[in-house]
Amino acid sequence: MIKLYYSPGACSTASYLALEEAGADYSVERVNFAANQQQSPEYKAINPKARVPAMVTDRGVLTETPAILAFIAQSHPSAKLAPLDDAFAFAQMQAFNSYLCSTVHVAHAHKGRGTRWADDPAAIAEMKRKVPESVGACFDLIEKGFSGPWAMGDSFTVSDPYLFTLSGWMEGDGLDLSRYPKVMDHRRRMLERPAMRKVMAAIAG
Amino acid sequence: MIKLYYSPGACSTASYLALEEAGADYSVERVNFAANQQQSPEYKAINPKARVPAMVTDRGVLTETPAILAFIAQSHPSAKLAPLDDAFAFAQMQAFNSYLCSTVHVAHAHKGRGTRWADDPAAIAEMKRKVPESVGACFDLIEKGFSGPWAMGDSFTVSDPYLFTLSGWMEGDGLDLSRYPKVMDHRRRMLERPAMRKVMAAIAG
Repeated sequence: MIKLYYSPGACSTASYLALEEAGADYSVERVNFAANQQQSPEYKAINPKARVPAMVTDRGVLTETPAILAFIAQSHPSAKLAPLDDAFAFAQMQAFNSYLCSTVHVAHAHKGRGTRWADDPAAIAEMKRKVPESVGACFDLIEKGFSGPWAMGDSFTVSDPYLFTLSGWMEGDGLDLSRYPKVMDHRRRMLERPAMRKVMAAIAG
Repeated sequence: MIKLYYSPGACSTASYLALEEAGADYSVERVNFAANQQQSPEYKAINPKARVPAMVTDRGVLTETPAILAFIAQSHPSAKLAPLDDAFAFAQMQAFNSYLCSTVHVAHAHKGRGTRWADDPAAIAEMKRKVPESVGACFDLIEKGFSGPWAMGDSFTVSDPYLFTLSGWMEGDGLDLSRYPKVMDHRRRMLERPAMRKVMAAIAG
């Protein structure tokens, strides 16, 4: 039995969606970021990084979205959420997830989490100012490389919930959404999936 | 036949070392960062992100260190560079690699690559100032979680060349190395490996 710690709107939504798409036996627990619950001793005993997602399994705790997504796919092979028998195709999927994690999410984080990398308020404001440009450049690359209908092409994979989660931040990051028709089409396609609707309703509720 | 594009001192060293440890059939090509070769049209045709590493395979190009490292391990199973038959242990290795990529490397990058996230020189200087603190906090966590002798415990994996590559930046990032005895021991252990010596000599030459 898997238990996912998540926060609404955070990147942990990708893992939540992947668990639902996998038909996994899981439960979720909301971490209250408004109350800074991620910094509580209780939560830091689960994840010393004080972040979401954290996924508790019967073998121990897993963190880091790309690792969790690949694990969900590998441990639920019948759901076919990754090209498990093709190391190159699997690596392409992992490269996409790694880019979302280490470049796209990081660029976005300079809007609201600037204190990770600076203390001076003027520097934090300057980081925030550049977010539309830096996140925009990431999505320019994603849009250009998108063949569709899914992030990896013909087959739905765990990259799709991850892309959907991060593309949900584009409007708030000040991007002109009309520049990204393929990414916007992907969002519409994702919203039609039953797993998506179920998770979105659960998070909203 | 694999061809790895790398730059001396960059995170691509991890992939170079992993290829050598795997006994892979590979060649390397140096990308001249001093001449800004990574921004050339020729290189951007290989990797539109204008970064290293990029690894050309007979199936196409792979980017992103965590994806490349897992691919090298999966495509050279006899080298035993990852727990390939244990999805949970594989995910733990991937989580470590993802943390190095998206948190440790990113914190370090605020020293020399601040223009990714700000334009104002004062903000870039402020980011640089905080690097010892932010990178230090990452290595505090790694030091605390390190059981050894290798990053994943008893077995050598692709996480070891990656950790070695990034821990090589600690001194330049202004960290007090005496605070990290386990990470420093790991560096010494790595330097004794024949593959390490061969690659280090090739990069230096």
